[in-house]
This record gives sequence, structure tokens and C-alpha cells, in this order.
Amino acid sequence: MGIIETSSGELDVVRDEIRAMRDLTDKPFGVNIAQAFVRDPGIVDFVVGQQVRFVTTSAGDPTKYTAQLKAAGLTVFHVVPTLAAALKAIAAGVDGLVVEGGEGGGFKNPRDVASMVLLPLVASKVNVPIIAAGGITDGRSMAAAFALGAEGVQMGTRMVSAAESPVHEHWKQAIVAAAETDTVFLNRFSKPGLRALRTERTTRLEHEDHVDMSEFGRATDLYFGGDMEAAIALTGQVAGRIESVSPVADIINSTIDEFRARLRGLQRFA
Amino acid sequence: MGIIETSSGELDVVRDEIRAMRDLTDKPFGVNIAQAFVRDPGIVDFVVGQQVRFVTTSAGDPTKYTAQLKAAGLTVFHVVPTLAAALKAIAAGVDGLVVEGGEGGGFKNPRDVASMVLLPLVASKVNVPIIAAGGITDGRSMAAAFALGAEGVQMGTRMVSAAESPVHEHWKQAIVAAAETDTVFLNRFSKPGLRALRTERTTRLEHEDHVDMSEFGRATDLYFGGDMEAAIALTGQVAGRIESVSPVADIINSTIDEFRARLRGLQRFA
Repeated sequence: MGIIETSSGELDVVRDEIRAMRDLTDKPFGVNIAQAFVRDPGIVDFVVGQQVRFVTTSAGDPTKYTAQLKAAGLTVFHVVPTLAAALKAIAAGVDGLVVEGGEGGGFKNPRDVASMVLLPLVASKVNVPIIAAGGITDGRSMAAAFALGAEGVQMGTRMVSAAESPVHEHWKQAIVAAAETDTVFLNRFSKPGLRALRTERTTRLEHEDHVDMSEFGRATDLYFGGDMEAAIALTGQVAGRIESVSPVADIINSTIDEFRARLRGLQRFA
Repeated sequence: MGIIETSSGELDVVRDEIRAMRDLTDKPFGVNIAQAFVRDPGIVDFVVGQQVRFVTTSAGDPTKYTAQLKAAGLTVFHVVPTLAAALKAIAAGVDGLVVEGGEGGGFKNPRDVASMVLLPLVASKVNVPIIAAGGITDGRSMAAAFALGAEGVQMGTRMVSAAESPVHEHWKQAIVAAAETDTVFLNRFSKPGLRALRTERTTRLEHEDHVDMSEFGRATDLYFGGDMEAAIALTGQVAGRIESVSPVADIINSTIDEFRARLRGLQRFA
């Protein structure tokens, strides 16, 4: 299922993307509300008005939108980086969780916890469905996530690198070229924590106690202009496992095939 | 299989432990040579002389001891934190690898990589057996490690917390009490990187560019005296999943039972 992101805050653009999605498929899709970036207070009315049925909320307090979204009939999953955050989201009434390990790219809890620890911890304490994020790129990692207690997976960096992804080819090629050690974690003592591709800029910022959001100021020059030093390229450690720019359909099909094959291969231990 | 550690460098003590191990079991066991701590150049002769058959080497250059150990007929696994280190160990002639994710406790590469990414990356590039370490504490995490390409698992923190572990009860109880966010990573810009339990001391050290090894100076006061602020308690994130001090036999049996049950539960997807 595709998830349309709204972090630009430009609702006209998002409306066009939802329309394009409907033209491309009759299948379900969702929208992510990255709360810290949604400047428009009408985002919930907008999502409801677009007849979206599934929303992930992230980067903010789960009590803010959950009741309103649920009242409008939507299914709501909240993105959580810790057990405490998971329990808070459950208390807020979410339908499920996206449990995101610290190896993933993007906005993170400053005290990052790896999927291998976080996923089974949360799964052992809650009764809602879990989508695993952070380190997921193929059928092996999907099988591992399911073993740890997930019932679905979310790919971030892998989809940024996909052939259809709108980001500049320079970013995709930087992902393909990256080693597994080529990300940095910023704002470890501040908020929000960030995992990003190692560049000259982020190597410098890694030493600073606080990275100001103004470092994202020329994000579009990076995202679409291909100037990798213009801003911060949010990217997960899994960049070290991505070896080619592939179409989304190939990524999904090969992931499902490999997921099943891995589980068949493990039968002999069961 | 139990692994006797030699990092104290006190070979008389190690000899006693090997003798105790032989009295307790006819089953195989191994010895870890943490190269950075082995002050005695005769460690290889010592291990060979004790008729040890399996050795893990860590915290150092795999070209240093591998040929000598192999020539003496031992099976040698080297502990690696990155793909580059794995390839170097293979070139040095090791029989297998302990692939250790950054969520694990102890000495780390300053650029830590989580097991969810590191394990399948290394597994896809080498043809030797892999033992997974970092984040492993039960059957769920063991099943995940196997899905990612491991053929065995190693538990560090879980064994430190075990009933039979010689460390002070204060450390065991600190592991039981810890949340998944209660470790720190030290020496991110220096060597060796370290993951340890969050204490007043390590919370202070987390902000320093370089943590000197003298901070370990009163290690025995911590390990055996129970003064948790006396030194640095090397501990993995998985402390957040450990809820009781259990006997080793219970840990192993419940891990194997859960490992098989998880794999059976995943059959429906295969």
C-alpha cells in the first residue's frame, strides 16, 4: 500500500497526488500526517474530505488527531520509537502502530533503539497490529520483522531509492553507493533526532549538540535539484544494502517472493 | 556452548575456569580472545595447551592470531561490526564470523550498524557460518537472526544477567530495571566505541569526544563489588527486554522452544 506524505504542508500538491493515486489504482492507499510539519490546522478535515481511509500519524503527540480521525471513520496507525510512546498511542486509541527502529532514516527519538530490540519489546506489550519500520528493505528483513512480532513492514529509504521516486538521481545514486556505516545520527542530545546520509555537511553537524531545522532550509535543492550538500538527506542504514535503483513493483514482488522463500527455508528448524 | 572470556589477562584464573568447565560438562565450549586486552603474548600457546577446540577472537586485527590458531587445529570465529571487517577476517582465513550489531553491549565500531542491516548484508557477501550477536535474548530474536542469515546466536547481556553469572546482583538488577532506551554509546568519534548502561558516569561521558580507558579503572568494584558508578557497565539495548534473573538452562531452553514456536507460527506465510 502506498503512503502519500504531506510534510510539505502544501495541500494543493497533496490533493494532486491523491488524485494521481486514484487514477493509478483502485487499491487502498494511505496518507502520512507528520504532525511537526503540518502547519495547516485543517489537515484532518482535508484528509477526511479526500475520502482517505488510512492514516499514519508521526512526529508528534498521538492524542492530537487520533480521536478526530477515528470519529471520521479512518484507520489510524501512529509511528513510535519507544515502548513508552507505543503505550501512549494505544491509550490515545490508535488502531495500530508503526514501530520504527533507530537504524531507519528520518526523524528519530534522540535515544534510538534498534528494531531487533524495539519490535519484540513492543509486540510483547500491546495487542494491536504492528508495522515494522527501520532496516526493512527485502524479504529477509521482512521475515525477521515478522519473527519479531510485526504483521507488516514499511520501507522508507528503499522507496526513496526507487525508480519512480521523485527525488533527484544524485540522492538515489548516493544511496546505492553508501556503505552500511555511511549514515550519521544528529541531535542526539536535542530534538528531533535525525538519521541522515553522511555528507560533508552532516559529518560537521554530527559533532554539534543541536542541529537547527534551518539546516533543512534548501531541502528542495537537495531533493529535486540534486545538490547533496544543500540540506540533510534523511536516509536509513539500510542504504548500505541497496545496490540498484529498481521499479517499485520489482521491489515489492522480489520482497514477497524472498519473504516466503526465507520462511520455507527455516522450516527445518521448526 | 559456553564461551570463557580471557579479558582479565590473568591466565591462572582462566585456567581455573577451563578446569571448572571440564568438571561441569563433556560438551564443547570455547574461549574468547579479546585481543586488545590480552597483554600476555603467550595467549595462543595457552589456549592450545588447554586443548580448547573453539575460539572467538575480537577487538583486534584478525590477521594477528588466526593462522597460528588454525595451524594448531582450532576452529576460529572472528567478531566483526561491519562488512569491511568481515571481508578482512575471511581473507585472514577464519572459519566463521560473529556478526555483532551496534545495539549490543561492549566494544563497538564507532560507526555502529544495527543487526537488522548488518546481518543480512554480511550474510549476502560471505560463505562462512555466521553467529549473530547484538539484540539477541530469546526465541523471537533468534528466529529473526536466522531469517537474516545467521546459523547461530550469541547472547551477551542476557548471560551477564543470568543467575549463575558472577557479576554483582546490582548489575543484574540494573539490567532488569532498564528500559530499552537506557544504554549510552560512548566514543562515537574515537576508539573503541562502547555501549554501556546509562548511569550518572556514562551520562556524563556520553558528551565527551573521547572516553579514556582509565574510566574502567575500578571495573572490579563495579563487576563484583556492585558499585555501578565505579566504572562502565558494558550492556546492550536488550537490557530493556530482560525482566528477570534466570538460570542459564532456563534461558537456553525457553529460547529454543520459542524459536521453534515462532517459526511454526510463520508457516502460514511460507
